[in-house]
Amino acid sequence: MAKRHKADARPTIAQIAQAAEVSVATVSKVLNGRVDVSPPTRERVERVIKEYGFTRHRPAHSPRKGKTGLVDLVVPRLDDDFFFPILEGVEQVLKEAGMRLVLSTTDYAVEQQLQWLEMEKERPADGIIFVLPSDDVIEALSRHRLPFVIIHKQGGTPPTVPSVSITSWDGGFAATNHLLALGHRRIAYIGKNVYAMDGIERFAGYRTALEVANVPLDPALQREGEFSATDGYIATRELMALEDPPTAIFAGNDHQATGVYRALYELGISIPSIVSVIGFDNLPFTELMNPPLTTVQVPRLELGRIATTMLLSLINQEPLNMRRVILPTRLIERQSCTSPTGK
Amino acid sequence: MAKRHKADARPTIAQIAQAAEVSVATVSKVLNGRVDVSPPTRERVERVIKEYGFTRHRPAHSPRKGKTGLVDLVVPRLDDDFFFPILEGVEQVLKEAGMRLVLSTTDYAVEQQLQWLEMEKERPADGIIFVLPSDDVIEALSRHRLPFVIIHKQGGTPPTVPSVSITSWDGGFAATNHLLALGHRRIAYIGKNVYAMDGIERFAGYRTALEVANVPLDPALQREGEFSATDGYIATRELMALEDPPTAIFAGNDHQATGVYRALYELGISIPSIVSVIGFDNLPFTELMNPPLTTVQVPRLELGRIATTMLLSLINQEPLNMRRVILPTRLIERQSCTSPTGK
Repeated sequence: MAKRHKADARPTIAQIAQAAEVSVATVSKVLNGRVDVSPPTRERVERVIKEYGFTRHRPAHSPRKGKTGLVDLVVPRLDDDFFFPILEGVEQVLKEAGMRLVLSTTDYAVEQQLQWLEMEKERPADGIIFVLPSDDVIEALSRHRLPFVIIHKQGGTPPTVPSVSITSWDGGFAATNHLLALGHRRIAYIGKNVYAMDGIERFAGYRTALEVANVPLDPALQREGEFSATDGYIATRELMALEDPPTAIFAGNDHQATGVYRALYELGISIPSIVSVIGFDNLPFTELMNPPLTTVQVPRLELGRIATTMLLSLINQEPLNMRRVILPTRLIERQSCTSPTGK
Repeated sequence: MAKRHKADARPTIAQIAQAAEVSVATVSKVLNGRVDVSPPTRERVERVIKEYGFTRHRPAHSPRKGKTGLVDLVVPRLDDDFFFPILEGVEQVLKEAGMRLVLSTTDYAVEQQLQWLEMEKERPADGIIFVLPSDDVIEALSRHRLPFVIIHKQGGTPPTVPSVSITSWDGGFAATNHLLALGHRRIAYIGKNVYAMDGIERFAGYRTALEVANVPLDPALQREGEFSATDGYIATRELMALEDPPTAIFAGNDHQATGVYRALYELGISIPSIVSVIGFDNLPFTELMNPPLTTVQVPRLELGRIATTMLLSLINQEPLNMRRVILPTRLIERQSCTSPTGK
């Protein structure tokens, strides 16, 4: 993480400690005006501090006068590891800017999101980063006094709204093409009804890839799902019970893929020799799955970093290079896909 | 997550929308004083709001006058999923209390932690929750104007410091006993040098269990490590190269266990038939490992919830039932342990 941070011109407590040949704790004591430091030591430390122009760690780019130095980040949930690198990216950039991250959750409920915005009106903040807002919330945000940037979205976003998202369509297209290239024709998709633009786009990518390859679309292979392990499990039990079951399953996200694995394992169907599986998101645990899951990488850290950089520009009334940033996805090939048997 | 929240007496926007037979968005529009609402609708909504005594979502237990409503949570890193349930627990309780969570990272560096405290002096906040503070930081916190609670710790904590931690010693003892009960005598431990009380305690539990069972302690089976997959991998390569290799490996944490798995997999050593493996923390991915990892469950959500509840009491100058809370760990048996071959 550290290496991602911009170099900081200010001398650190450690540098001062080193220059004054004392411990970090001693420097801290001097800064805190503690009495339990010997006069000569105190003098030496103070001399170094004066020399280095040490400024009690005031941040390099400190927020303008009158600003609160607080930025709100709103995510649906904290029990879904999908959001953590986004959180990490936001925290990195705010830390670099000497701003503070205020974290809130509103689940996926429009009502909770609107309530949060109501409360926000009475709270100090310089700007808002909202992950997966509903259309109602985006509309409310647009009337809000504070600048904001959204990450992903539940519905369509007016191009004027500052947003960062990913090429979900390309991801769905690439994943499906990978399976087609291996010779698969019976390719299932789970999660077609996900209430997020993101999910709608990757399903569209799946359909388009099949159409381009002249593979007939079979509605029986397109399953509902809400991106949970449970619906991946249920859909897979249904899919494998079909008269003409799929030879490959494209799970809408990695959590769902773990449910697909469990169902296939229970049925004694081996991955990938009988059924190939592909996921979406490239969550850390996918490397540890057996076999390691082929999936689509989503630049989640960058989603957070870029959204925050955009928000800081808006807060400082600087122009944005782009109001709508879309980051690329990338296929990660592991061992869960191969050519269908008998092909 | 929602179900863990206390019931909120305030009528929600949804309840008002229902009572007024309008959409949530319409209620929001009325609350926002929007003009694009028909007068009769507006009247109906306003009547319901008046009737319910709707108070623009002011939190049930709103912070006292003069308070900032902000609580700082400081964690080492955001790329380690160990911390997320702690974060989730803190956010849940603060949300229930109508307080805002300010998130910071300081890595494991004493200097960064002290710098953070320096900056904190110039920032508004009602209290601090510090995860894994160094002794220097605990000392500095004790002199700080704000109330604080610490979660885990790097060194020994004076019993007067409000803290929440886990029974790491018991966890290490239980994990080792589990392997002893299966008949293992050559049991390795990885991570003896971890710079955290937590790590020191689980190693002590391992040693004690062996002593109680009259199994001679073999220093060759006690390996260094920093709780990363890499040192788990390196230590395992070294351990299996011993003349008398272990029949069981106790990894200091789950991340390390993934490195142990990789090393054994490369060496063609099957788990658990040749070598049993046990981890610590019960991170979500351990269920997905092959075979699923036997590990020690750490109540991380509760660490966050209880520390926050304690802090809120301190902020409101209420007495604490206990200044030092220690939560139990629990062995989770999966498929990575069995009796040693030939025993």
